[in-house]
Amino acid sequence: MATPGSGFWSFGSEDGSGDPENPGTARAWCQVAQKFTGGIGNKLCALLYGDSEKPAESGGSQPARATSRKATCACNQKPCSCPKADVNYAFLHATDLLPACDGERPTLAFLQDVMGILLQYVVKSFDRSTKVIDFHYPNELLQEYNWELADQPQNLEEILMHCQTTLKYAIKTGHPRYFNQLSTGLDMVGLAADWLTSTANTNMFTYEIAPVFVLLEYVTLKKMREIIGWPGGSGDGIFSPGGAISNMYAMLIARFKMFPEVKEKGMAAVPRLIAFTSEHSHFSLKKGAAALGIGTDSVILIKCDERGKMIPSDLERRILEAKQKGFVPFLVSATAGTTVYGAFDPLLAVADICKKYKIWMHVDAAWGGGLLMSRKHKWKLSGVERANSVTWNPHKMMGVPLQCSALLVREEGLMQSCNQMHASYLFQQDKHYDLSYDTGDKALQCGRHVDVFKLWLMWRAKGTTGFEAHIDKCLELAEYLYNIIKNREGYEMVFDGKPQHTNVCFWYVPPSLRVLEDNEERMSRLSKVAPVIKARMMEYGTTMVSYQPLGDKVNFFRMVISNPAATHQDIDFLIEEIERLGQDL
Amino acid sequence: MATPGSGFWSFGSEDGSGDPENPGTARAWCQVAQKFTGGIGNKLCALLYGDSEKPAESGGSQPARATSRKATCACNQKPCSCPKADVNYAFLHATDLLPACDGERPTLAFLQDVMGILLQYVVKSFDRSTKVIDFHYPNELLQEYNWELADQPQNLEEILMHCQTTLKYAIKTGHPRYFNQLSTGLDMVGLAADWLTSTANTNMFTYEIAPVFVLLEYVTLKKMREIIGWPGGSGDGIFSPGGAISNMYAMLIARFKMFPEVKEKGMAAVPRLIAFTSEHSHFSLKKGAAALGIGTDSVILIKCDERGKMIPSDLERRILEAKQKGFVPFLVSATAGTTVYGAFDPLLAVADICKKYKIWMHVDAAWGGGLLMSRKHKWKLSGVERANSVTWNPHKMMGVPLQCSALLVREEGLMQSCNQMHASYLFQQDKHYDLSYDTGDKALQCGRHVDVFKLWLMWRAKGTTGFEAHIDKCLELAEYLYNIIKNREGYEMVFDGKPQHTNVCFWYVPPSLRVLEDNEERMSRLSKVAPVIKARMMEYGTTMVSYQPLGDKVNFFRMVISNPAATHQDIDFLIEEIERLGQDL
Repeated sequence: MATPGSGFWSFGSEDGSGDPENPGTARAWCQVAQKFTGGIGNKLCALLYGDSEKPAESGGSQPARATSRKATCACNQKPCSCPKADVNYAFLHATDLLPACDGERPTLAFLQDVMGILLQYVVKSFDRSTKVIDFHYPNELLQEYNWELADQPQNLEEILMHCQTTLKYAIKTGHPRYFNQLSTGLDMVGLAADWLTSTANTNMFTYEIAPVFVLLEYVTLKKMREIIGWPGGSGDGIFSPGGAISNMYAMLIARFKMFPEVKEKGMAAVPRLIAFTSEHSHFSLKKGAAALGIGTDSVILIKCDERGKMIPSDLERRILEAKQKGFVPFLVSATAGTTVYGAFDPLLAVADICKKYKIWMHVDAAWGGGLLMSRKHKWKLSGVERANSVTWNPHKMMGVPLQCSALLVREEGLMQSCNQMHASYLFQQDKHYDLSYDTGDKALQCGRHVDVFKLWLMWRAKGTTGFEAHIDKCLELAEYLYNIIKNREGYEMVFDGKPQHTNVCFWYVPPSLRVLEDNEERMSRLSKVAPVIKARMMEYGTTMVSYQPLGDKVNFFRMVISNPAATHQDIDFLIEEIERLGQDL
Repeated sequence: MATPGSGFWSFGSEDGSGDPENPGTARAWCQVAQKFTGGIGNKLCALLYGDSEKPAESGGSQPARATSRKATCACNQKPCSCPKADVNYAFLHATDLLPACDGERPTLAFLQDVMGILLQYVVKSFDRSTKVIDFHYPNELLQEYNWELADQPQNLEEILMHCQTTLKYAIKTGHPRYFNQLSTGLDMVGLAADWLTSTANTNMFTYEIAPVFVLLEYVTLKKMREIIGWPGGSGDGIFSPGGAISNMYAMLIARFKMFPEVKEKGMAAVPRLIAFTSEHSHFSLKKGAAALGIGTDSVILIKCDERGKMIPSDLERRILEAKQKGFVPFLVSATAGTTVYGAFDPLLAVADICKKYKIWMHVDAAWGGGLLMSRKHKWKLSGVERANSVTWNPHKMMGVPLQCSALLVREEGLMQSCNQMHASYLFQQDKHYDLSYDTGDKALQCGRHVDVFKLWLMWRAKGTTGFEAHIDKCLELAEYLYNIIKNREGYEMVFDGKPQHTNVCFWYVPPSLRVLEDNEERMSRLSKVAPVIKARMMEYGTTMVSYQPLGDKVNFFRMVISNPAATHQDIDFLIEEIERLGQDL
């Protein structure tokens, strides 16, 4: 890893003896040239001196950081790309950077050195010879480095060091062997777009301050609605800070649609509302119900079949039951791609029931929505076009950097009516442009981060067909894993049959347990296997995969693949690693 | 602006004739050297040739992009920094970048060129000779460029062009003359930190996948609580996606504290709850009440004095009134720094009333919280230490890139009890590390963006004293503006007296209106002045400042200063510009 101030971007000598503004000698130029890697510096020096004359490396009796001179540059280039020979971070502080007078050169040098650190991390993220994680326990990590905040500023050398240290302990979520969450991978175009978003540093509430991003949100949401299958891509939507909030929006809008007076009068003015979702659905439905004053008791969990799909007949039974009690069913949230099993609820059957009982149909496709991009797999979401609202997180299966979650709503204008408060200092009605682009008042948030640009730019770069290829590849890899382990000694599948999504759920049964009868003791011992293997994985840092219990099933591994960097060899590696780490248990 | 592929990072010649891997001649090396700006290339060439021998510029009959060769590099540097002579973006696609085999060189070249585009934008952001905004109406912008999403991928040259175009139309929110929102400025360390956050691309829900960021959130929130004045910095908190959500959290937790059964049973199980906030408070209180099923009718707006501060006697009167009706006052949200006037509610008096009636005291210090960093100004928040919860947005007055909003809670554990749902696939109870660092279940969100790192790194770089200097400077600038216009012809202050925050609210009265009597016609004409001046500002692109009506006051300018790049000259410029654009009205 580069030392701050001598990163691969710096090509001026640090003690100033090779100041390229006053080169004087070939020696000084050669020192500059030596900062090039890949043998280029040597070749350049050879041209300057001839091989025999090449001087010793630079660096005299003075330590490299002993001189401090404020960087000033006479060039008129914007931005200046002159050698950063005299940028000495040990003597520079944040106050020396822009908007400081003469701040341009140190700023560019500093940002370029930060970029050098980030690029090293990017390259390492894809390097299978590096660890996925350099694990430290919380108390170790607190002690190993001084993380405290103080009154006095630190110099930029220290700031660069903090960047390096932070990345040293970070999890390489883009590593081909990181399978721990639904969001994995590191897309280069998405990353570039996210850097641009940070640089633009604006807010989604009005067209006035985010013109391009507001238009791109409009274009992108419309495209997503077209793909869902709503005629002409009509409807509404928003990018929200994550799937849980998107699901909460759906619940909020469904309630408002049925009882608009709830906005002013609150839940006291409406009958008891009941929401339905499967027992395998995401916990955010309950979280949302708690927050919205509906209460978790009013979220009825519908039974699933052995594959984790909602059973429509149970849904209908529970709806009738609620109605008989005088309660009002207002929302069914079907899941397209459950978190653990990757199951797709039968959306067509759910849609029929919702239609029959006039209930808002929401589809939580946070995880499964990506499959809509694949001609081969989109049938798994048949019926999604009949939903009233859909959660779809491109930051999961489509590999967009975190966060990027969309809530799509079929009826236009409903979000606005539900959430608007008409703040006159933000949504002035006498502006000189078309106010329909001031979309902020339909959000629960006031300020809203720009989440759309990374998705939009990736879409331009990959095309719909690129997302399709990505998704087809990940599903193929999941099938490869399934085919390997389904009959392999020491493995038991949590549910039968080929996975519908990339979730492959299985137990690894160590040799010592294979001989045991299927009784409570075995279950109890089996439940301890995955946590130990996982802990070992993290300590070795070789790979990461999630585990959990579910219902009456004790801890099992849930393998998911959303990272296009993963290959068959990485799947093979995972299996071997589980066996290596678990065979003694 | 650099053409993609010939950005200032590229220093190999594009047609390959100067391939530095096989330099052969001084001519080839000189071509490389010519890519250096600031006269360095010429000096280097002079050394290589002597002045007389310098060859003509490179570039023959072949267009620069005519050759396409996949970039491969023999150097073992990670990341490779070899010249990118043969990276031709017109022939490269996202699929050629990492994790593609041989993807490292094109990836680094691409990301470096993106960075070049971003650095140009950064430098321009601080350049007063550039426009704040290159305004286009929505329909123009939609027509001027093809923003549509398609099936087929675009090449990386097009992707780089999209980055440039997006920034061309972006608002320079870091420009010294951008005063439009509470969040302005572009902090270089904060920007670097946000780039790092994007690169780390992880999620705050567990220590397992965000060890450093989880610790930094812990350290930073503790420090913020210390500054608020809670003993030993004890308590709880979270970074949330914006002040509106932070305020909603406060309302949610306050309700849960009083009626924990609401989580399961919903609002049906609790009496009618009433929240109190001032008529000048942020609209998010009403938005939150609507969402949480409390209803906007149950948010009582307390009268303010002429400076926009809540009148405590009116608060007490309305609390008693609510109680007499059998309703239950559960929350008072005082504002420290109102959005329009920048007023600070009298927190000590509010705290006394909250204590007397046992009501949760929330302080919405989204905008004013930054003043806690200033020894000179923090008295304006006296009493905040008695609050039960505080919203504080470092992305406003402290200049942290968007978004960075904290909700601080005095009682530890309450957020967790209120929001936790124990998802077993995320918050496994048999992990091998201290589970108290898995903080995700106290959030409403499931996935949560890393918002802390930019604040933490800026704090290390500036120190508390650096934030103090920033805040003192912005307040001094506001006072400077106030002193200039309070007696200047053509200006009327919206409220009397020195501003408490950086909000300066005023009417500009064009000459034609100065002679009119203070009647309805004048008011009507005056109400049209600010919108027209603002529209002209945006079309000229010279500066941006917000306006709005408030209560019975017609459209007035609200000037706010949070950007440390602004100077006295920029304030002078604003005044002159308002007069230049408004004198004919």
